[in-house]
Amino acid sequence: MVEIAVMGHGVVGSGVVEVLTTHRESIARRAHEEIDIKYILDLRDFPDSPYAEKFTKDFEVIVNDPEVHVVVEVMGGLHPAFEFTCRCMKAGKSVVTSNKELVASKGAELLKIARDHNVNFLFEASVGGGIPIIRPLHQCLAANDVIEIAGILNGTTNFILTKMIRESMPFDEALALAQKLGYAERNPEADVEGHDACRKICILASLAYGKHVYPDQVHTEGISSISLADVEYADNWGGVIKLIGQVKKQESGKLQIIVCPMFVPGDSQLSSVDDVFNGILVRGDATGDVVFYGKGAGKLPTASAVVADVIDCVKHFASRKYLFWEDGSKDYVEDYMEDSVSMYVRASSDDVSLALMNADKLFEGVTRLVRRNADTREFAFVTKKMPEKDIHANLKALSKLGVDVLNTIRLGDF
Amino acid sequence: MVEIAVMGHGVVGSGVVEVLTTHRESIARRAHEEIDIKYILDLRDFPDSPYAEKFTKDFEVIVNDPEVHVVVEVMGGLHPAFEFTCRCMKAGKSVVTSNKELVASKGAELLKIARDHNVNFLFEASVGGGIPIIRPLHQCLAANDVIEIAGILNGTTNFILTKMIRESMPFDEALALAQKLGYAERNPEADVEGHDACRKICILASLAYGKHVYPDQVHTEGISSISLADVEYADNWGGVIKLIGQVKKQESGKLQIIVCPMFVPGDSQLSSVDDVFNGILVRGDATGDVVFYGKGAGKLPTASAVVADVIDCVKHFASRKYLFWEDGSKDYVEDYMEDSVSMYVRASSDDVSLALMNADKLFEGVTRLVRRNADTREFAFVTKKMPEKDIHANLKALSKLGVDVLNTIRLGDF
Repeated sequence: MVEIAVMGHGVVGSGVVEVLTTHRESIARRAHEEIDIKYILDLRDFPDSPYAEKFTKDFEVIVNDPEVHVVVEVMGGLHPAFEFTCRCMKAGKSVVTSNKELVASKGAELLKIARDHNVNFLFEASVGGGIPIIRPLHQCLAANDVIEIAGILNGTTNFILTKMIRESMPFDEALALAQKLGYAERNPEADVEGHDACRKICILASLAYGKHVYPDQVHTEGISSISLADVEYADNWGGVIKLIGQVKKQESGKLQIIVCPMFVPGDSQLSSVDDVFNGILVRGDATGDVVFYGKGAGKLPTASAVVADVIDCVKHFASRKYLFWEDGSKDYVEDYMEDSVSMYVRASSDDVSLALMNADKLFEGVTRLVRRNADTREFAFVTKKMPEKDIHANLKALSKLGVDVLNTIRLGDF
Repeated sequence: MVEIAVMGHGVVGSGVVEVLTTHRESIARRAHEEIDIKYILDLRDFPDSPYAEKFTKDFEVIVNDPEVHVVVEVMGGLHPAFEFTCRCMKAGKSVVTSNKELVASKGAELLKIARDHNVNFLFEASVGGGIPIIRPLHQCLAANDVIEIAGILNGTTNFILTKMIRESMPFDEALALAQKLGYAERNPEADVEGHDACRKICILASLAYGKHVYPDQVHTEGISSISLADVEYADNWGGVIKLIGQVKKQESGKLQIIVCPMFVPGDSQLSSVDDVFNGILVRGDATGDVVFYGKGAGKLPTASAVVADVIDCVKHFASRKYLFWEDGSKDYVEDYMEDSVSMYVRASSDDVSLALMNADKLFEGVTRLVRRNADTREFAFVTKKMPEKDIHANLKALSKLGVDVLNTIRLGDF
């Protein structure tokens, strides 16, 4: 029998208790040990819970109990999750977390503490909810160089974009619906502005390339500026708009990493990832493209990933898992303005023909996109691939020639 | 330094040597040991190979060398692969294989030998080529009951069907093209008749439900009877035809398992798996649907999966992997005639209206499908869900009423 503690009794935490309870027997068979929840840490009271006697408000009880071998951290947020996680590992307990903020900000540090204290720090649930991605990526890595990762990593924004694409629902309305259905929080900023996706691509990039990438190193754009006009132009181009987290390693050793809406070609496997689903494409030099698809969030999917990690801890008390990456560095990420991209541009002008002629000249050839019901001043085009700073310089020049640039979206090439 | 041997120097075997050589340093870093190929077993001569000095034709050299700790079996076929694998494990060597025939026929037996001799028997490459599926499935399993697995498991047939669907290329022509491109063998039976897909769904089913399913227990149909008319009717229905391996566990404890072409709904993630790609859907009670997509075959994808297993062996000399399933039994698989399905039926009759009226009566309601350029005698419909034996009885009755049944295809519901 292995005793564990679950810190946090919110959506994921209660899901972890539920999965451990409903699958008790099969889990014992798979872990080769029975797993028992000794403590549930939460500041709130749950007098009617069937597990009422397991609740504690005192972290010290958990960290000081030598019987507890695995601690599940599903409180969320950076503090005190970070301090609690450090202390648990230093006390010889393995920690399993679903907390992407924690892993994205402090992963290298926590992995080092885990190594130094010969315990495991596992976080499969921090990316892709119930989709196995951390372990398969680790496995792909074994015999591959990862050329690129591109993913739809946030279900809330994908739900909103799907509503915009499929039902021509405006952004505000789609966001309100997502909130009504419980997919988006009352303050939707973390999702809508791309911060959640940013944390996840940081975790994947850190794992894939062995060195920590911090969220504040990543240029991040959300989807709040996307209009139905953009959706229609994407359709004319032959694709759909998705919020993408993408990372590639350059020959220089620096990373090219970004979170932003992109035009995704219709024949890409990511283009058919709809609603609250996530899809993650890993391009290896030997495997080619491998895609992982499933529910990226939700109580039971996320809880099942947490529990799988708990089982893995229980099976590996003897031998540590070799999940590891080193500290990051300031110059590890390339300035996104240096990256070469193709750009979609939507603009307006009193003289569209002249504006397009000027765009064609400045960008050395552009491809025009069209949509129905555009007003006569509106036009849109896509550029060739060139450094992003050159695109911005050209757009500035275009503005001086009387063109209002209304929106720009990068073109994906996966 | 860990010494290994590679048995077989065909497509996959030479790929394994290539991946181990080109990624030598990164593999050593990940395995925490350098991996060296001591022997390559092949009956043919490779005098010009840069590894010429490693070749041997004598298996005894390998099995009797105590320095060899891991043996890669990529010879294919059942004999002598089975005997060699047994002897290697009994001699204390872990074995990694890409040989689906071996695992599908002898998996339980080999896993038992591995357990008894405290070595590993790993076979990630036997299903899905370079797609990580065996380990992620094992991981999904940890905290899930697997409700269903459905997969496009054979790239050759998927290539042929994609050509039929996308370019209206007749089956024979698409097969010839697949052979020309090296996707299909000169004798394409194992692919086209579904035997390859059958082996793979047997492996997945055995792993998912913990008990061996043997290929000869699985009703298997290939794609050679699929016509362009069927492709057009599938389109009218709102989907595409794919060769699917599917398994579900019934409440009785018996498995429902089949390999056959199916109509796959257009909104299923499997419907967009095209060309030589594979896609595997795993439906868990907690995770929901998770889909794994990638190249299911090919030298480097398959080799990279083999090498990932080799690395895993090297990292786990101390602690065995808990991959295991027990022997099968005769009555473990439900007779497919008892399974409930909806069926597409293409038929012809001198009096189509009367025939459809009769079909509607016999099946208690059918939905007619249409296509352009069908001759006036042809018609098609889909039935409601009912036990397959009832469908066959109804079709027999329909035949007696002057209807020629030309083809039937099951409807997928994933």
